[in-house]
Amino acid sequence: MGLIVQKFGGTSVKDRNRIFNVARIVANTRNQGNDVVVVVSAQGDTTDDLIAKAAEITGDPSHREMDMLLATGEQISIALLAMALQEIGVPSISLTGWQAGFSTDRAYTKARIKRLNTERVESELARNRVVVVAGFQGLNRSEDITTLGRGGSDTSAVALAAALHADRCQIFTDVEGVFTADPRKIPKATKLKEITFDEMLELASLGAQVLNNRSVELAKKYGVELEVLSSINPVPGTVVKEETQVEGMLIKGVAKDEDVAVISILEVPDVPGMSFKVFSLLAQKNINVDIILQSSGRDNCKDVIFTCPKGEAETAMSVLGANKSRFGGGEITINRDVAKVSVVGAGMQSHPGTASTMFEALYSQNINIHMISTSEIKISVIIDKADADKAVAAIHDAFIQ
Amino acid sequence: MGLIVQKFGGTSVKDRNRIFNVARIVANTRNQGNDVVVVVSAQGDTTDDLIAKAAEITGDPSHREMDMLLATGEQISIALLAMALQEIGVPSISLTGWQAGFSTDRAYTKARIKRLNTERVESELARNRVVVVAGFQGLNRSEDITTLGRGGSDTSAVALAAALHADRCQIFTDVEGVFTADPRKIPKATKLKEITFDEMLELASLGAQVLNNRSVELAKKYGVELEVLSSINPVPGTVVKEETQVEGMLIKGVAKDEDVAVISILEVPDVPGMSFKVFSLLAQKNINVDIILQSSGRDNCKDVIFTCPKGEAETAMSVLGANKSRFGGGEITINRDVAKVSVVGAGMQSHPGTASTMFEALYSQNINIHMISTSEIKISVIIDKADADKAVAAIHDAFIQ
Repeated sequence: MGLIVQKFGGTSVKDRNRIFNVARIVANTRNQGNDVVVVVSAQGDTTDDLIAKAAEITGDPSHREMDMLLATGEQISIALLAMALQEIGVPSISLTGWQAGFSTDRAYTKARIKRLNTERVESELARNRVVVVAGFQGLNRSEDITTLGRGGSDTSAVALAAALHADRCQIFTDVEGVFTADPRKIPKATKLKEITFDEMLELASLGAQVLNNRSVELAKKYGVELEVLSSINPVPGTVVKEETQVEGMLIKGVAKDEDVAVISILEVPDVPGMSFKVFSLLAQKNINVDIILQSSGRDNCKDVIFTCPKGEAETAMSVLGANKSRFGGGEITINRDVAKVSVVGAGMQSHPGTASTMFEALYSQNINIHMISTSEIKISVIIDKADADKAVAAIHDAFIQ
Repeated sequence: MGLIVQKFGGTSVKDRNRIFNVARIVANTRNQGNDVVVVVSAQGDTTDDLIAKAAEITGDPSHREMDMLLATGEQISIALLAMALQEIGVPSISLTGWQAGFSTDRAYTKARIKRLNTERVESELARNRVVVVAGFQGLNRSEDITTLGRGGSDTSAVALAAALHADRCQIFTDVEGVFTADPRKIPKATKLKEITFDEMLELASLGAQVLNNRSVELAKKYGVELEVLSSINPVPGTVVKEETQVEGMLIKGVAKDEDVAVISILEVPDVPGMSFKVFSLLAQKNINVDIILQSSGRDNCKDVIFTCPKGEAETAMSVLGANKSRFGGGEITINRDVAKVSVVGAGMQSHPGTASTMFEALYSQNINIHMISTSEIKISVIIDKADADKAVAAIHDAFIQ
């Protein structure tokens, strides 16, 4: 029928039983007449165990040697999965990242794929074999092993699907697909049949970590149809593609992100260039500023408020504190007890009422909104962390019946 | 000064402390003005752990996938050792077998080195780095990973030393060198300063497993001076080379091998072609026949007696039993309760009294000799296993004061 790339994460191959479970999924796909390329991650805790071994040796390992070390994790997985496939009668062969043709740049531990030479993979497929490829890794121009960083196996799978012109790239995880909200918290959350790349990107960056963002960007760029589905429960998952049927669904999901800090710089002189001074300082320190809000002037002063990830808040506070005099010398405060709650959906572009429905839902629960940010397919609010779960439930109720 | 290849086995790199111990040995060698190439095996039990993982999947793993799996063991070791060297201030880089240029034949799990392209190793040495190479592994013509089989890291080290024209190849182990007998059993056993390649080969094949035989053969072929020494106790070891000073030492060692079975075919017709029939049958089944003894004829019959490794005795018995009629149909017996005790020394070539000294020592202990075999530099006897330790002690006493 076609060619399918299937990617399985570390939990899906963590032990003998899970490896055979994966082998059976692959065998079924093949028995339906498909060629199959499988991309796997390192088993369960292997990567963490290897990191611990390095930490025993040095607090500051060379990134090159770290990649040499970590790449063994996927190499173990591919050999074991190829053996399991052979054991159940499926001809198969394992290939490391470099054998599968992944060329990357030199950025050890977070390399980017530069080229993908699929000659070997195609010749093995032509020999009627399932090809089991080590995700997460490649080779740079010096013929040194590199890794793509966390979540890199998703990217490996999408890159292979793109280069091989696969009919679909299936990402198997521990959830059944993409839900309208976290199903552990919102029992009414429903699984989406389809979602667009842009919606998926917004949801992923908003804390609904199902797919690695780089892999979604790559899939969008090359038009690779993705499917997110469960390796345990054999039901259809969520398809991620360019355009979806609207089906009357205004929004696709409600997401919550608690990794947010709000920093306020008070009484900044209301003269040109102040915002530039603040945010160029933050950019120099690689602070990922998300939402920016600027109060209207009063007494020739304004307040500049922004959010960033909690892990970068300390650096932000110290660089701002050290340069306080450059923007008026007013007080700088930080609030870590906040959360960002967002609705995402391409449908809202043509529905002016989305924002007011969301705000009404929050008001009905007496939840105060600190900041608001909107894009074409997303509305986010910053609220007290204590209100976050209640807010998600109320918004979900308001939009999704 | 020179270029030294140092090889460390799995026990020598089994944990953090042992890895740093190795790093310090390498650093000392380098501080004495040498370039250093280090070859390491997989850590401690890693190889066995990986074999156990495969055994959970299948009782009959593909050899190709086995090599893919096992090669990760050394890759972990080289990364950790390179990190440890860097941590103590020694510039270093790790290379897998294929990065270090090892090309092998296609025989997975027991590949032989075909070519060694040292370009990468030499360019790293030129950059003033210690090069840490994964032993035991290479790449075949299909660009698939192969392993050299147990003891293969010794072979990797000797091959590198030969190709790089190194001044010496040091094999670090858990013993201080080659002894005249097993020092755990014979307290008077002394460490040899020097031994010839041929003597080492005889000792190794006789059960004194210090060096892998293939590596000694390779060293002899390319004239690589070997040194066997301890990674724990920093004293000079034993040098293995082409010619040694005789130093009045008639023999270099007494070795015991209990992996021996004696098979006797009784009442074989004393006509031409009988031995050929027996041993061609055994050769077809790849039985490694060691000592052969044929009794003088009586009643136009003779007894044909030979030894082979215990693990091959069952196959030998069944092939002989099935073809019994072809050589007279007499009784075929097997004795597994035997041992081979040997003295080895190039000096005995010019000393006709060696055999009689050995037999006198055995007679003094009332030990019965079943079979005798001699070569230019070795005399072996087959005796009851129960007498073996006593025999080694008596022979050692007779030759080495």
